[in-house]
Amino acid sequence: MRTIDLNCDMGESFGAYKLGRDEDAIKYISSANIACGWHAGDALVMNRTVKLAAEHGVGVGAHPSYPDLMGFGRRNMDCSGEEIRHYVVYQIGALQSFCKVNNVKMQHVKPHGNLYLTAVENETVATAVAEAIVSVDPNLMYVALAGAKGALMTKVGEKLGLKVLYEAFPDRAYTADGTLASRRVPGAVITDPNKVAERALMMAKEGKVVAIDGTVVDLEVQTLCVHGDNPSAVDLVKTIRGLLESEGIAVKPMGQV
Amino acid sequence: MRTIDLNCDMGESFGAYKLGRDEDAIKYISSANIACGWHAGDALVMNRTVKLAAEHGVGVGAHPSYPDLMGFGRRNMDCSGEEIRHYVVYQIGALQSFCKVNNVKMQHVKPHGNLYLTAVENETVATAVAEAIVSVDPNLMYVALAGAKGALMTKVGEKLGLKVLYEAFPDRAYTADGTLASRRVPGAVITDPNKVAERALMMAKEGKVVAIDGTVVDLEVQTLCVHGDNPSAVDLVKTIRGLLESEGIAVKPMGQV
Amino acid sequence: MRTIDLNCDMGESFGAYKLGRDEDAIKYISSANIACGWHAGDALVMNRTVKLAAEHGVGVGAHPSYPDLMGFGRRNMDCSGEEIRHYVVYQIGALQSFCKVNNVKMQHVKPHGNLYLTAVENETVATAVAEAIVSVDPNLMYVALAGAKGALMTKVGEKLGLKVLYEAFPDRAYTADGTLASRRVPGAVITDPNKVAERALMMAKEGKVVAIDGTVVDLEVQTLCVHGDNPSAVDLVKTIRGLLESEGIAVKPMGQV
Amino acid sequence: MRTIDLNCDMGESFGAYKLGRDEDAIKYISSANIACGWHAGDALVMNRTVKLAAEHGVGVGAHPSYPDLMGFGRRNMDCSGEEIRHYVVYQIGALQSFCKVNNVKMQHVKPHGNLYLTAVENETVATAVAEAIVSVDPNLMYVALAGAKGALMTKVGEKLGLKVLYEAFPDRAYTADGTLASRRVPGAVITDPNKVAERALMMAKEGKVVAIDGTVVDLEVQTLCVHGDNPSAVDLVKTIRGLLESEGIAVKPMGQV
Repeated sequence: MRTIDLNCDMGESFGAYKLGRDEDAIKYISSANIACGWHAGDALVMNRTVKLAAEHGVGVGAHPSYPDLMGFGRRNMDCSGEEIRHYVVYQIGALQSFCKVNNVKMQHVKPHGNLYLTAVENETVATAVAEAIVSVDPNLMYVALAGAKGALMTKVGEKLGLKVLYEAFPDRAYTADGTLASRRVPGAVITDPNKVAERALMMAKEGKVVAIDGTVVDLEVQTLCVHGDNPSAVDLVKTIRGLLESEGIAVKPMGQV
Repeated sequence: MRTIDLNCDMGESFGAYKLGRDEDAIKYISSANIACGWHAGDALVMNRTVKLAAEHGVGVGAHPSYPDLMGFGRRNMDCSGEEIRHYVVYQIGALQSFCKVNNVKMQHVKPHGNLYLTAVENETVATAVAEAIVSVDPNLMYVALAGAKGALMTKVGEKLGLKVLYEAFPDRAYTADGTLASRRVPGAVITDPNKVAERALMMAKEGKVVAIDGTVVDLEVQTLCVHGDNPSAVDLVKTIRGLLESEGIAVKPMGQV
Repeated sequence: MRTIDLNCDMGESFGAYKLGRDEDAIKYISSANIACGWHAGDALVMNRTVKLAAEHGVGVGAHPSYPDLMGFGRRNMDCSGEEIRHYVVYQIGALQSFCKVNNVKMQHVKPHGNLYLTAVENETVATAVAEAIVSVDPNLMYVALAGAKGALMTKVGEKLGLKVLYEAFPDRAYTADGTLASRRVPGAVITDPNKVAERALMMAKEGKVVAIDGTVVDLEVQTLCVHGDNPSAVDLVKTIRGLLESEGIAVKPMGQV
Repeated sequence: MRTIDLNCDMGESFGAYKLGRDEDAIKYISSANIACGWHAGDALVMNRTVKLAAEHGVGVGAHPSYPDLMGFGRRNMDCSGEEIRHYVVYQIGALQSFCKVNNVKMQHVKPHGNLYLTAVENETVATAVAEAIVSVDPNLMYVALAGAKGALMTKVGEKLGLKVLYEAFPDRAYTADGTLASRRVPGAVITDPNKVAERALMMAKEGKVVAIDGTVVDLEVQTLCVHGDNPSAVDLVKTIRGLLESEGIAVKPMGQV
């Protein structure tokens, strides 16, 4: 029986601000990337989210970011490799503390927002993130972009001995060379839950995706990223999981994929 | 042979801002309370300070604070017990991550600034701090104020099973009931290094302090707090250590007292 | 014809976080207290909110806070009078800049959250806020709690030459001495929009409120505080304004009351 | 009689952190670029620095930055033009408030750190900064890099009707095309106070600089940037001013150049 992980960003509320529908989305996913207070999340939210994940058997991962609460970690910051390495160490540690409190073993690390995007492109950043993970706990898994474009993150992570998980985005269009199509391209984001679920199924079952030009492209995938931050997104997650399971794909935390 | 610990706040630089003479003071102390980024310190400073402590055989402790960089954690904030508990869990975790990176076992936790002062007075705060420590790692030691005034922190910590270390301040005057004299009282702060060192010796050797009215008061002490944030303070630390050792008192990290 | 002001906290979104339904509530109020980035709000939100207020003929006020984004300014911070004075100067200035950009004259200042609550009780805080306002622009109006409990804020503001506006809360119960009943008292918060509107009307028309024990108490009021931060709150604001106008009370910005 | 302005970054302390020797350097400069709390400075420091400048007849300018206290504003952040515009409006306003309190007219705006560097290179950034200034107060002067490399900032500022002041760095080497030599080039930073003072004199008197290859290059300059953040820097400022005045160059705030 094939298995796949469904990961989702969680714990993005902060103080008086509520973001996302974690309580609903958690029912359908298998791994949670939990904000660590630098782009979103605070200590209480982190604790609550780790607890919520544990209650639902969902794997817990750290979702470290550039220090940019005002920009939600979505803006590039020209930090040095040394800065990034220590920033990631700090954030993993903060979340690990809540894992201990809730008797949970942390499963993975996935950089957030622009830190993820720069890690995909930039060797210094990719290395800094991977070194941070290794230095804190080499058993933590490292989520990297699947396909040709994710090769750098993957290479860097594997060289350091990390277990790298290839991640794909079923609601995003891919180009014929297996990389994500720019969001500016018409059709780059797919919103119909059924279409997204079918793409998720093809990724999970066949390791393939239909590119934006119709080509069928190979794409080795172990985890699918879905979003849970609006009502329709919960439907999306629910629809994906429903279809995957009805087709005999088990949805399990990355540690069990 | 008697032993005593000398603890000092460290790692209080932040970004472009340098505070304290850690590289000098570290030579004379045995335990370092390291800022965790909420009142001072940043990820790079934390890493550097843990490393510095390790190189000098100095015990590493977390120095968590209210979230108040602008006020250096010195202002009371009316946080709930639940907020404080999670804030302390977060900060301990962040520092533990740097301990792992540097292959160091964290030794203790000492609340910083106003969080310490409110823990001394307020059971909710004292309990929140102690519960945070227990929930992350019950083997971490808890530094509490020695003497009558520290009874609440001590009681709360011991009830939760923590090893509590009694802390005294050789450069501060005490009243006849064994509590710290208010800073507003003339003579409340003693600046002559030799006098401070003699008080430290009496505390370490006899478990006594001469109160501001001349009375000799019992004061059970396992760790002496000294400050390293100005040039004369390094002299202070050096003088204290010199006198203690010349009188046959071993200066050792709290874990070995 | 009698007039009254309806004021509402606005511009409390921050970065990716949306809070409140400003676009709806703005239609029914006459003055907006705009967050200045310390408990909520960011530069873009401030600009957008000033602009929105201007488009609706709503008076613009600064809503300064303690520096506590994590606690939404709702926690007491033991800042000195000097600190508070400069914090308020800073925040007024930041908002005034957006007033200039949008060709708006700033109308008033109302401290936010715990800064308001401590200004009500504590002369140092009340004075610091009032001095800050006077030092930046003595023509700015100062919103203070109406009734016996607001006497301190009022006295301090008027002594410094500020025009003080008395503020009442139609959705909050009052005690027989004209002060707000504690939120812990059952019935302290009134949620039925019609009841709240009737209380608003009595305050605006007769300068009276029915206390929690049934007594009718005098309460001189120039501005009514209403909340716009949830769907039912918009109904509340709408209902209050509808009733006031149907009873011949004009709802106008404080500058015109 | 020729006049020139000497500008210096000031007010960079923050909370418990002291940076710079403002009280000493202020005696020798004519314009101060004052941090606005985003890379450095806090409300109390801003007030104190505006007051200090006023007491010494030194012109006051805002020194706005990216929101990056941890990185002292020295790291590029990929903010949109809209974000930058509002960030600069916010910071100018905050400082203007302290100008009002101290009865000072704000003179100029000079972007700080990486915001300056990106404004030099990037039209969106240069425009956002200039638009922010114009929208708050078109009488504020705009400090831009002198020489070929500063052409973009200058063009953008002048197009919007701002008075642009050309700034040169007497302690930095220039290339033969009148642009700053990279800091990585050996000899890029000149430390001998006498040499720096002679370069300052040539800039002020002749509008020329000797480039790193010996060529004499024209460089129209109205303000010289000097640094006051270490003991030797105060000597530098003092030496420059001494030489300029002994050679009949009057050192005056930019508003009087």
